[in-house]
Amino acid sequence: MTGGRLIGVGVGPGDPELVTLKALQALDCADVVAHFAKNGKAGNARTVVASHLRAGVEELPLCYPVTTEIPRADPAYRDAIERFYVASAARIAAHLDAGRTVVVICEGDPLFYGSYMHLHARLAAKYPTEVIAGVSGMSGCWSAAGTPIAQGDDVFTVLPATLPEDDLVRRLADADAAVIMKVGRNLAKIRRALDRAGRLARAIYVERGTMADAAIMPLIDKPDDGAPYFALVLVPGWEPRR
Amino acid sequence: MTGGRLIGVGVGPGDPELVTLKALQALDCADVVAHFAKNGKAGNARTVVASHLRAGVEELPLCYPVTTEIPRADPAYRDAIERFYVASAARIAAHLDAGRTVVVICEGDPLFYGSYMHLHARLAAKYPTEVIAGVSGMSGCWSAAGTPIAQGDDVFTVLPATLPEDDLVRRLADADAAVIMKVGRNLAKIRRALDRAGRLARAIYVERGTMADAAIMPLIDKPDDGAPYFALVLVPGWEPRR
Repeated sequence: MTGGRLIGVGVGPGDPELVTLKALQALDCADVVAHFAKNGKAGNARTVVASHLRAGVEELPLCYPVTTEIPRADPAYRDAIERFYVASAARIAAHLDAGRTVVVICEGDPLFYGSYMHLHARLAAKYPTEVIAGVSGMSGCWSAAGTPIAQGDDVFTVLPATLPEDDLVRRLADADAAVIMKVGRNLAKIRRALDRAGRLARAIYVERGTMADAAIMPLIDKPDDGAPYFALVLVPGWEPRR
Repeated sequence: MTGGRLIGVGVGPGDPELVTLKALQALDCADVVAHFAKNGKAGNARTVVASHLRAGVEELPLCYPVTTEIPRADPAYRDAIERFYVASAARIAAHLDAGRTVVVICEGDPLFYGSYMHLHARLAAKYPTEVIAGVSGMSGCWSAAGTPIAQGDDVFTVLPATLPEDDLVRRLADADAAVIMKVGRNLAKIRRALDRAGRLARAIYVERGTMADAAIMPLIDKPDDGAPYFALVLVPGWEPRR
């Protein structure tokens, strides 16, 4: 019996048509398709590839033990998540030891802010492993918005909205182009930081960027400060050079 | 006669299997496929989709008038490039005015450091326009390297290697994760900057990341300072959290 193979597969930002040929080939050869799930519901990656799964393929949902019930800074949150990744890696390892090909499907790009990397770090040294890049969520958003984000020698920065306001201001002023992610409850702070950095006028708010019900508008036109966790704010560096 | 449609299509980082279904659909409905070309040779985007072009589709190569013969800071370079984008947009507009669907194929992701945005900025307000996101070159590189690049609340930054050394040092020390692009003749400077920022040990050099002849190695193991313009250096933010 030879060992199996692990494949981390990016399925893109949500539009099922933004899946790559290479991702579909991986799904075709999968013995087991693993995916992260929250609150007992299959995640977006599972929805994206639903029409591409082989009939009868074994699925392995990996269910997060906590999401927002415990604050992230709480040691109890970190302990629970740590145990979850250890246990998930062990479940996948059991399939690999049995010689099976395990595909872990991931929203966006697996190694760019993705949960897959916690499995990769625990398994890639022990088993043959391949990672298939995907279209990132933020690429999907600036493409849907039709907004050139960075060009030439621009410095481009991804900022989590959880940063303190002063840090956001400093970093926004220091970059040519930026994306602010994990907007959620931080939208009022983001507005203030962009205003202080002189970047509010051109900022664009994007919610469910590649979905049919996307909301895309200049941030100054967004009527309130309610936003889902995965909304983004784009701060384009691009200006016409004429 | 109704006007045509412009579609900017990302074809990914080089591996023809990293093309999306949506990109293939756009190629299927294209009347004209435009692509940038250098020194009279079709660019990588054309090579990537070669097997997916409809027989007999009209091609429109857009040939850069200069590449490295004139320094980029020279006004003559900027004038020549400016005239080139104006003329290219006019050639595409002529097809759009005739009611044709024009697909502009782009390496990586069209609105992320891509030449396409210079056409988009000139045409998108006048014609129905769609942008199809692609897998970026840097996603292809960190996936090929199997290197988790950023996680959680990391600040991630893209830095052009053309920045002065002191600026590189400051920005590398200020980011959790980084990609240094346009390596070319700047590799010795990049090494010094990473060393001064305390980030040299984990930096990874990637050349032709998704090609069959990729070269991927720890930067400290790269034997010389010769590198192609499009090589990247990855500075992963990810460290196992145990």
